[in-house]
Amino acid sequence: MAKSKFEYVRLFEVDDRCLPNTWVVVRVDGKGFHKFSTEHGYEKPNDIKALSLMNRAATSVMEEFKDICLAYGQSDEYSFVFRKETQAYSRRSAKLSTNVCSLFTSAFVYYWNEYFPTIKPRYPPVFDGRTVLYPSNQNIRDYLSWRQADCHINNLYNTTFWALILKGGLTPTEAENKLKGTLSGDKNEILFSQFAINYNTEPEMLRKGTVLVRRKVPVALPNGGTREKSQIVQEHVDIIGDEFWNTNTHLLTLT
Amino acid sequence: MAKSKFEYVRLFEVDDRCLPNTWVVVRVDGKGFHKFSTEHGYEKPNDIKALSLMNRAATSVMEEFKDICLAYGQSDEYSFVFRKETQAYSRRSAKLSTNVCSLFTSAFVYYWNEYFPTIKPRYPPVFDGRTVLYPSNQNIRDYLSWRQADCHINNLYNTTFWALILKGGLTPTEAENKLKGTLSGDKNEILFSQFAINYNTEPEMLRKGTVLVRRKVPVALPNGGTREKSQIVQEHVDIIGDEFWNTNTHLLTLT
Amino acid sequence: MAKSKFEYVRLFEVDDRCLPNTWVVVRVDGKGFHKFSTEHGYEKPNDIKALSLMNRAATSVMEEFKDICLAYGQSDEYSFVFRKETQAYSRRSAKLSTNVCSLFTSAFVYYWNEYFPTIKPRYPPVFDGRTVLYPSNQNIRDYLSWRQADCHINNLYNTTFWALILKGGLTPTEAENKLKGTLSGDKNEILFSQFAINYNTEPEMLRKGTVLVRRKVPVALPNGGTREKSQIVQEHVDIIGDEFWNTNTHLLTLT
Amino acid sequence: MAKSKFEYVRLFEVDDRCLPNTWVVVRVDGKGFHKFSTEHGYEKPNDIKALSLMNRAATSVMEEFKDICLAYGQSDEYSFVFRKETQAYSRRSAKLSTNVCSLFTSAFVYYWNEYFPTIKPRYPPVFDGRTVLYPSNQNIRDYLSWRQADCHINNLYNTTFWALILKGGLTPTEAENKLKGTLSGDKNEILFSQFAINYNTEPEMLRKGTVLVRRKVPVALPNGGTREKSQIVQEHVDIIGDEFWNTNTHLLTLT
Repeated sequence: MAKSKFEYVRLFEVDDRCLPNTWVVVRVDGKGFHKFSTEHGYEKPNDIKALSLMNRAATSVMEEFKDICLAYGQSDEYSFVFRKETQAYSRRSAKLSTNVCSLFTSAFVYYWNEYFPTIKPRYPPVFDGRTVLYPSNQNIRDYLSWRQADCHINNLYNTTFWALILKGGLTPTEAENKLKGTLSGDKNEILFSQFAINYNTEPEMLRKGTVLVRRKVPVALPNGGTREKSQIVQEHVDIIGDEFWNTNTHLLTLT
Repeated sequence: MAKSKFEYVRLFEVDDRCLPNTWVVVRVDGKGFHKFSTEHGYEKPNDIKALSLMNRAATSVMEEFKDICLAYGQSDEYSFVFRKETQAYSRRSAKLSTNVCSLFTSAFVYYWNEYFPTIKPRYPPVFDGRTVLYPSNQNIRDYLSWRQADCHINNLYNTTFWALILKGGLTPTEAENKLKGTLSGDKNEILFSQFAINYNTEPEMLRKGTVLVRRKVPVALPNGGTREKSQIVQEHVDIIGDEFWNTNTHLLTLT
Repeated sequence: MAKSKFEYVRLFEVDDRCLPNTWVVVRVDGKGFHKFSTEHGYEKPNDIKALSLMNRAATSVMEEFKDICLAYGQSDEYSFVFRKETQAYSRRSAKLSTNVCSLFTSAFVYYWNEYFPTIKPRYPPVFDGRTVLYPSNQNIRDYLSWRQADCHINNLYNTTFWALILKGGLTPTEAENKLKGTLSGDKNEILFSQFAINYNTEPEMLRKGTVLVRRKVPVALPNGGTREKSQIVQEHVDIIGDEFWNTNTHLLTLT
Repeated sequence: MAKSKFEYVRLFEVDDRCLPNTWVVVRVDGKGFHKFSTEHGYEKPNDIKALSLMNRAATSVMEEFKDICLAYGQSDEYSFVFRKETQAYSRRSAKLSTNVCSLFTSAFVYYWNEYFPTIKPRYPPVFDGRTVLYPSNQNIRDYLSWRQADCHINNLYNTTFWALILKGGLTPTEAENKLKGTLSGDKNEILFSQFAINYNTEPEMLRKGTVLVRRKVPVALPNGGTREKSQIVQEHVDIIGDEFWNTNTHLLTLT
């Protein structure tokens, strides 16, 4: 039963360390969540409870990994941005993606009951994960812009699609045909003229997704004073334009 | 809000497809499970409920991935062996490790209550994952032997260690010192002479771990007959020697 | 001028070790050799001197790397098969491909004069290189079969193409059109009926390419006796069928 | 002889494309050049002809690859810096390293005779190659600084070592012992006090190595005027400090 004669098999593991001095993004993505959301009665076009649960799971990840400086979530996905110089798990790609992915999944199931107290999940939900590297500040900003633009495009579509069905009485196929080839302006117009919905006043969490960052937050002290404490906060803001980055210059700066 | 100008960031994702015609192993490993097991009152040296929950979670993984021909679990780890020729997720390494790892974690939390109905988990448990390739049948057998030998060595140690503490009244430090430098035979002897424990009659699940394979199982039919159905079964057998492989030749054969 | 503050840049180098227990093939390929062969007056369809120079360069590589058990060359390419268990350069992929590629190139230029004594190369010839892994004996045989089938197909085409031009008086375009859509049998027929060439009696080096292997060769001793010495020999034989492998079983066997 | 049944073996080749938007460095390194330089009578401590041949070979590489913006050479090594955005060979790592390495080797042998007209190389010289990625401008500058600091340290040592032997009459072992533990200042002092050598007035090519860059150079026209032409020039300058980069800002700027 000597273990040593078999231990050579460890040599088959590969060294998958990420290139130093690059932004490391781990993105988790719901697997088959179209089906999952239907089977669990998610509200259409958006279910605030489901999005809040996503945010809760992502907060668990960010609490665990101090080197995640920002996370961005929308729909059934979440992206975690590790500082360029992180040494978490020696920057090993699979260690990062599987640990983040497992903790996210675990927290999602663990906290489910807080957001859906009356619904028992019918089966264990799954998220896949991937690690992607971005060398420059422009690249990481463009990555996040890509995800937020995706959020906008999908949410405008879904908002209109479900208005046509739920308020306009169309079938899904009719709604799909009606939207075929339409531009953003057309969808805004449909929402406004047919359903009196001003898309720009829809909740920002839906239109912009959720940014998680650490902020110094004042905490009350027993003596009546306050002290600052670092806390993970949710913000629903534009991260495509310059403003967010100009007022948060520390995020893209090496520490 | 054109998504297209940002989409170039997809080019930063890497192609991580596994070498064809090699065994693909995904191993998941509990993160910080020494602490987790203590905080959740796992029985020492082994908690049958905890091992059964591991087996339940692994069964979920194997139900989902038809190309897993065998899984082997012990302690807080599980190894999943994909057929050499699997095309699951186009053999992409990160897809395989994160999906398996996420589903395993999810099922572990999901089914927790069935095995620990009176204990609420204190925090979300985490498993990491990795994908390793083994080219030859000998290599994959040696990999599994490595894990089963590890099971044996650790379980014999832990059984003796906890007997010394729980039955022998030693402190953990005293038990550790007593076992320092002992060989297998010494530990067997301590168990037998001091505690009347014949290690070889301990439950096989503890000494050998758990093998999951698919077996044709007879199923009763309404008309009183039976038909065969493929089912995932748990076996607690030696997989180091030749016997298991000689009686399961289909496992190492291309289909 | 402290070197140490810059030495962190070494951490950006990646570990590219090949998976253990797999066949390692390094293939070198002439870059722009259509142009090179034309500019240096290579005879058409085949230039024996040029092929001999390729074989000479490959022999240099094989003399240097004792772990290459077989090499196969045709046209402007050469494949070097390292033993499965080779530890040359710790199996680092780039080390293997660049060393083989550099030595092959170097020897090609170095020995050029022996094969083309009256022609000075007009510019430095270049070969690229790649490392590819093959897990099973069948895979490595199929790899070599792929290259030898390529040799056959190209050589039959080229032999017919140049016969039509050099002996049949066709222009290259006319010859190309004549061969469009023809099968092997058609080309054999053209060669035989129009030019009285029996393709199967063409030199085997052209039809089969060149295999380099090590053979025990008797060497004369001063005392009139002989002793065996390992030597790299050229063979122009079929390596697609079983015969070669049945009579050279040592090649696919671990030592 | 159907090639197609074997062509699946191409699937075993891996996609090794370099991360986009990073500096790509290919470094070639003489293999066993201590022995090679001794066997070919290289002058000690430096052989100007040998260094000039290295520069000639590197110029061939730079002429071929327009995306190399800078090359740096010293001793028996040369580093080639590709523009961050290069698409040469689709950024495939092995293609880049083997092509550069093969061309460098080929040119080294090809032009040997121009620099060593009376010495025939005794065997084909070999250079290995590697591809390394650097994300930021600071990283690529630090990489080049590392190589130039290496040049300085080695050249000061070698200059002193060989002065002690050739002019001071020491044996190599005596010279080695004398230099053990000495700092730069000590070596400068030995050179100056014992051999009246002011190290700082030694040829810059030896102290600094060689930088290859493209410069607009005036070319005389038939009509008596001039026009500018891009040409690869050799410079022996400091690239550790800021001055070089401040006067060559185009090198680190995306085009």
